[in-house]
Amino acid sequence: MRLINLDNNATTRVDPEVVQAMLPFFTDQFGNPSSMHSFGAAVAAAVRKARLQLQALIGAELDQEITFTSGGTESDNAAILSALEVMSNRTEIVTSAVEHPAVLTLCAHLEKTRGVKVHRIPVDRHGRLDLDAYRAALTPHVAIVSIMWANNETGTIFPVAKLAGLAKEVGALFHTDAVQAVGKLPMDLKSTAIDMLSLSGHKLHGPKGIGALYVRRGVRFRSLIKGGHQEHDRRAGTENTPGIVGLGMAAELALKFMDDDNTRVKWLRDRLENGILQRIPNTFVTGDPLERLPNTANIAFENIEGDAIPFLLSRVGIACSSGSACTSGSLEPSHVLRAMNAAHAAVRFSFSRYNSEADVDRVLEVLPAIVERLRGFPSSGPGERSAEDLQSGLCLSSRRTGSRS
Amino acid sequence: MRLINLDNNATTRVDPEVVQAMLPFFTDQFGNPSSMHSFGAAVAAAVRKARLQLQALIGAELDQEITFTSGGTESDNAAILSALEVMSNRTEIVTSAVEHPAVLTLCAHLEKTRGVKVHRIPVDRHGRLDLDAYRAALTPHVAIVSIMWANNETGTIFPVAKLAGLAKEVGALFHTDAVQAVGKLPMDLKSTAIDMLSLSGHKLHGPKGIGALYVRRGVRFRSLIKGGHQEHDRRAGTENTPGIVGLGMAAELALKFMDDDNTRVKWLRDRLENGILQRIPNTFVTGDPLERLPNTANIAFENIEGDAIPFLLSRVGIACSSGSACTSGSLEPSHVLRAMNAAHAAVRFSFSRYNSEADVDRVLEVLPAIVERLRGFPSSGPGERSAEDLQSGLCLSSRRTGSRS
Repeated sequence: MRLINLDNNATTRVDPEVVQAMLPFFTDQFGNPSSMHSFGAAVAAAVRKARLQLQALIGAELDQEITFTSGGTESDNAAILSALEVMSNRTEIVTSAVEHPAVLTLCAHLEKTRGVKVHRIPVDRHGRLDLDAYRAALTPHVAIVSIMWANNETGTIFPVAKLAGLAKEVGALFHTDAVQAVGKLPMDLKSTAIDMLSLSGHKLHGPKGIGALYVRRGVRFRSLIKGGHQEHDRRAGTENTPGIVGLGMAAELALKFMDDDNTRVKWLRDRLENGILQRIPNTFVTGDPLERLPNTANIAFENIEGDAIPFLLSRVGIACSSGSACTSGSLEPSHVLRAMNAAHAAVRFSFSRYNSEADVDRVLEVLPAIVERLRGFPSSGPGERSAEDLQSGLCLSSRRTGSRS
Repeated sequence: MRLINLDNNATTRVDPEVVQAMLPFFTDQFGNPSSMHSFGAAVAAAVRKARLQLQALIGAELDQEITFTSGGTESDNAAILSALEVMSNRTEIVTSAVEHPAVLTLCAHLEKTRGVKVHRIPVDRHGRLDLDAYRAALTPHVAIVSIMWANNETGTIFPVAKLAGLAKEVGALFHTDAVQAVGKLPMDLKSTAIDMLSLSGHKLHGPKGIGALYVRRGVRFRSLIKGGHQEHDRRAGTENTPGIVGLGMAAELALKFMDDDNTRVKWLRDRLENGILQRIPNTFVTGDPLERLPNTANIAFENIEGDAIPFLLSRVGIACSSGSACTSGSLEPSHVLRAMNAAHAAVRFSFSRYNSEADVDRVLEVLPAIVERLRGFPSSGPGERSAEDLQSGLCLSSRRTGSRS
C-alpha cells in the first residue's frame, strides 16, 4: 500500500539531502565542538555554518541571535521562563487561546505554581485574534507576550509584526512560536520588533530532536538548561551536531524552494479543499480564508466524530489528523477549534513538497464513501449538533467537554 | 594524518550499526509516534523497543521507568528540579565537589535564586568521596542527593548504591549522573535504592542530542519541559525517534560487548599509563587506583601547564583533554582536580572500543619529546609547584586560581 502523508504539520519527511549532510557527523566528524583540540574545531565550523543558514531563513540580524535547542517545545519553555526571570518586576503573560500545548501547558503551570496572571486572548470563528482584547490586556504588568505566528491546526496566520509593535509600547517582550511558519512564510525578523522566536527542525524536512530559539541582540536571556558554556551560555549540553547541521541544511533548502513549493503546495491544497466541498455536502473550511498557511486545510465534516475520518483514512494508507498530533491520545476535542466555537469534527490535511496531484486525487476518490458510511452510523444522528449550530458559532464546548471528561 | 581519538569521555564515534538503525526513521518511518494514525504507531513500536534495550543495559525493573531526553545535562536538570518540586518541604541538596557542570551550575543557580542550601561533599586526593562529610550532610532537610556514578575527568567510581542507601535513611531522593558509567560498568538498578539516573547517548557510541532519565517506579516526578503528553507526561516535545532508536541500539551493543570491551580497553589504558610513567619522569596517575573506570587515564605531568600537552598532541593527530570538554574554552583549572588538591597540569586520555595498540604506541612515541620540550620552557621553572607539593596534597588552589582569574 502506497502511503500518502497529508499530516505534514505533525511532522515531515527528512529531506535526503539533509540526511546526507548529517551523516559525516556521526562516524567521521564526531568531535565535540566544545573540545579544545582540532577535531572539535572542524565541527564547530559546521555548527557556525548552520547558524548562518538559519539566520538567512528567518532574516535575523546576526547568527549569534540563534541558539540551538532540542526542539520547538523546549524553545517555547525557555523563552517564556527567561522572560519571567529577566522582567522580574512584571508578573503577567499574554498569549492566545489557540497556542500549542508547549505554551498553554506551561502558562497553566505558572498560573498555578507561581501566581502568574495569564491572559488568553480569544479568537473568532475563523481563528482570528481578537485585537481589542489583545490591546486591553497589554499593560506595564506584562512580562512577555507569546503568540504563535501560524496556528498548527487551522493554518491561520497571526499579524505577529503588528502584535510585537503593540507589545513594545508597554515594554513587554514579544515571543512567537513560529514552528509552523518557519520555512513556509518569508521572514525578516530584523525589520520587526519580535524579541524571541521558536522553530523546530522536523516541521521543515529537518530531523527531529533539534530546534532553535532566536533571541534578538540586546534582549536579556537566562538559560532553561544549566550546565556547560555551550551555545554562548544559553543552552547547556553537548551540541547535537548532526541535528544542527541537518537543521541548517533544511533551512537552506526551505529558503531555496520556498516560492516554488508554496505555489505548488497551495495549488494542491486548494484542489483538495474545492474537491471535498464539491463532492461532500455539509462540509466547510475552518480558519482564516485569506491569512492562512499555504499548506494547511482544516475541513469540518458535520455530524461526524473528529477522529473517525483520520482513522478510516489511515486504513487506506492516508495520514491526516484531527486536532494536532501533540495532544492526540488524550481524546479531548481540540482546544483550538473549541476556542473558535467550531465543531471538533474537523480534519486537518497538511501538505509538503513531497505531495503530488495523485495524493489529492486519491483522497477525493475514497473520502466521499467514508463520510457517507460514518454519517450512516447511529452515533451521528440529529441529537448531535446541526450545521446551523456550527456555522452560527454557538458555544457547544461545555456539552462536548462534559461528555468526554 | 591518521586521527587518534583518546578523548572518548568527551564524546564517542557513533557505531555504524547505530547509524544504520537510525536511517529508516529519517526518510521512511518518519511518522510522529504521538500521531493517532498507523504511520505513527509503527514508530511508537520502535521507541518501545529502544526503551527495552536501555532497560536491559541499566537493569531497570520496567521500561516505563525510562524517559528519553535531549541528553545528560537535561536529565540532570530535570531530576534535581523535579525533586525540589515534589519534596517541597525540603530545601537542601547534597552533591559532590566534583560533579559535572550540569549539576554544579544548576546547584549554584538554585542557591543564588531560591535560597536552596547546597552541601558539596569534598573528595580526597584520589578523588574519593569523604564519607564522613556525606553522612553529616544527610538530614531530613535534604530533598535530593545528586552524586555521579563515575567522574568524567579521573574515572573515579563512587559507591552510589551505598550512598543511595544512606540517603534513603533520611527520606531523601537519590539521583546519579551516570553519563560516564552507563555502558562501561555493569548495572542492576532494580537491586539498588537509586531513584533517578541520567545517561547520554553520545558517550556510548550513540548519537548526540539524545539521553535518558531513569525514574524509579513510584517516585513522583514533575517534568522540566512542559507541553504535550509525550513520554508519559514526563518530557514534552515531539520524540526524537531516530535518536531514540540509535540510543537503544547503542545500549544493546554496549551490553553485548561490555565484558570484552572492558578487558581490552583496560589493557590499552594500563599500557599507556605504564608506558608514560616509565618513559617520562615526574608523572603520576590521578584518581582512585582501584575504583576507576577501565577506560580513563588521568595523568599529571609536573611543571607543565595543563592545556599545553593536548594542544601539541592534537597537532600530531591525537585527541585528548585537559579537564573536561564541557568547560573548555573557559581557561579555568579543572574544578575536579582543584577539589582533589592536585595539579591542573593533568591530561585525560580516555579510550573506547575503537582504540588499538597502535594508538597507544603512537602516544608513547611522541609524548616524551613534547614533555621535554614543554619543560624546557621558561614558564615552568622551579617557581612552580614541586613534585613534593603535588604528592603531599598541599592545597595550592588559591595560588593557582589567583594567577588565572
